[in-house]
Amino acid sequence: MFDIVYLLEMTGIVAFAISGMLVARAKNMDPVGVFTIGFITAMGGGTLRDLILDNHPVYWIQHQELPMLILVLAIVFSYWQRAGRLPTSKIVLPDAIGLGVFSILGAQLALDLGHSWFIASLLGVMTGTFGGALRDTLCNEVPSIFRKDQIYASISFAGCWVYFLCQWLLENEALALTIGLLFIVIVRMAAVRFDIRLQRDPTQG
Amino acid sequence: MFDIVYLLEMTGIVAFAISGMLVARAKNMDPVGVFTIGFITAMGGGTLRDLILDNHPVYWIQHQELPMLILVLAIVFSYWQRAGRLPTSKIVLPDAIGLGVFSILGAQLALDLGHSWFIASLLGVMTGTFGGALRDTLCNEVPSIFRKDQIYASISFAGCWVYFLCQWLLENEALALTIGLLFIVIVRMAAVRFDIRLQRDPTQG
Amino acid sequence: MFDIVYLLEMTGIVAFAISGMLVARAKNMDPVGVFTIGFITAMGGGTLRDLILDNHPVYWIQHQELPMLILVLAIVFSYWQRAGRLPTSKIVLPDAIGLGVFSILGAQLALDLGHSWFIASLLGVMTGTFGGALRDTLCNEVPSIFRKDQIYASISFAGCWVYFLCQWLLENEALALTIGLLFIVIVRMAAVRFDIRLQRDPTQG
Repeated sequence: MFDIVYLLEMTGIVAFAISGMLVARAKNMDPVGVFTIGFITAMGGGTLRDLILDNHPVYWIQHQELPMLILVLAIVFSYWQRAGRLPTSKIVLPDAIGLGVFSILGAQLALDLGHSWFIASLLGVMTGTFGGALRDTLCNEVPSIFRKDQIYASISFAGCWVYFLCQWLLENEALALTIGLLFIVIVRMAAVRFDIRLQRDPTQG
Repeated sequence: MFDIVYLLEMTGIVAFAISGMLVARAKNMDPVGVFTIGFITAMGGGTLRDLILDNHPVYWIQHQELPMLILVLAIVFSYWQRAGRLPTSKIVLPDAIGLGVFSILGAQLALDLGHSWFIASLLGVMTGTFGGALRDTLCNEVPSIFRKDQIYASISFAGCWVYFLCQWLLENEALALTIGLLFIVIVRMAAVRFDIRLQRDPTQG
Repeated sequence: MFDIVYLLEMTGIVAFAISGMLVARAKNMDPVGVFTIGFITAMGGGTLRDLILDNHPVYWIQHQELPMLILVLAIVFSYWQRAGRLPTSKIVLPDAIGLGVFSILGAQLALDLGHSWFIASLLGVMTGTFGGALRDTLCNEVPSIFRKDQIYASISFAGCWVYFLCQWLLENEALALTIGLLFIVIVRMAAVRFDIRLQRDPTQG
């Protein structure tokens, strides 16, 4: 199980880093800005989770291959023209995997440290979404997770509860993790595909 | 004494959460955004204080009824039209109570941990004002606490020193807390009522 | 050695605080805003470093003369007209010294706590640049360290590696610190003087 989780986590980090780098390129930032925004998007949620839970050392200090990977990605993105022109649509699936992996693993860590389901779900959502919120704030935009044109954080929240319920009903950690993760990935892909929202904008027909 | 403090703290949290939710509604955010901005406005200052003072677990992890309360408020605010149209003027008094309670309790915690009056006053101001500053930054506005059209952080700072002096002169914790709190609430209400500022804008007559 | 390091650190803090206060004045903030932005610019990087490394108490709580100094500076800047009109060009040298001192001392602290060169260089860059990034974010601008019109964070990164190499080759801590610091200050001044960039903007001839 561990290897699959690690592989998925890596996929999520790469997807989140790339989503940050695409925004940084669009804002015409230099290679350092591309690395920094990529790093913050991929690591911001987990760092906040570790600080709030007093879980030291922070995970990217323990796994320094992760910031190294982001450094390599940033160099590729800054100097290889084709990477910089990657359309955003290509990263929807890996981004959904990242959201799923980060949310469920964040919630799992909080449970392991003895916190309640409710607190664990809040920390799962933070881990999954805070990096993207920081990316948008640093790039001077209202965070896209707060905008009505997509659902994102609420899928993460629901996925954490699916994971808790499965853990409670099935008493099988690996299976519960998998179901929670698949729930988030599938619902997120469906929400993008069918344009599902929590609330219609009253100004639009 | 404890029950009154807890009641006042609850009032402050509700007031801060509502002030965040009103801004989030004005920015046309969805229910998740409304919850998140409300949560950050109410909890941001205390979370920063606990992280800087290494005071774990962070207070809303210890008191999970507080984030639950904010979740309920966010649902009310998002789906009940009348709540969303609450005029900002209605929250000036509870917001002033929140500023007072958070500032004085933040300063008290720093004193309890053995820090000096000066450091405690800085942490009091952080606890009282940082949530609102995060709210404005995430909503992509220059934080209103920095603008010349109101005094806010300086009242919090002065109130902390009123509290320290009373504690030193009266040697009665409950009385000192009450006087510091009343000082902040009354001066803040007076500042709003009579439009008192630290510095006049030179471009205005 | 200690006294020179402390003097340089003080220079860096004053320079960073002043750079924040100049931006705050330009945004027409009141004295509280001027203090807050000055404080965050000078202390933000070191505070983030201490939180991520779990290094408590945070350094400005240990050295409360530093926030006091910033308070005095903020009063001078807010009420003494000439200080508020200080041209930005005057702070390029002290700002470069601040970047150098903060980067090298941040990296040194991470090494002392047993982390690798790569992690130490990331923390050095954070310590050196995060305060300025927070300043720009709070003032609602895309952080200048990410813009193509200057190199800043990459000089900090390179300087950390110069320091590590000298430490390894020369086995003399004081000499390695000095060379790393001078490298950052000189390259930064040269970059400003000769308008050196990492990447040319393709839209400009």
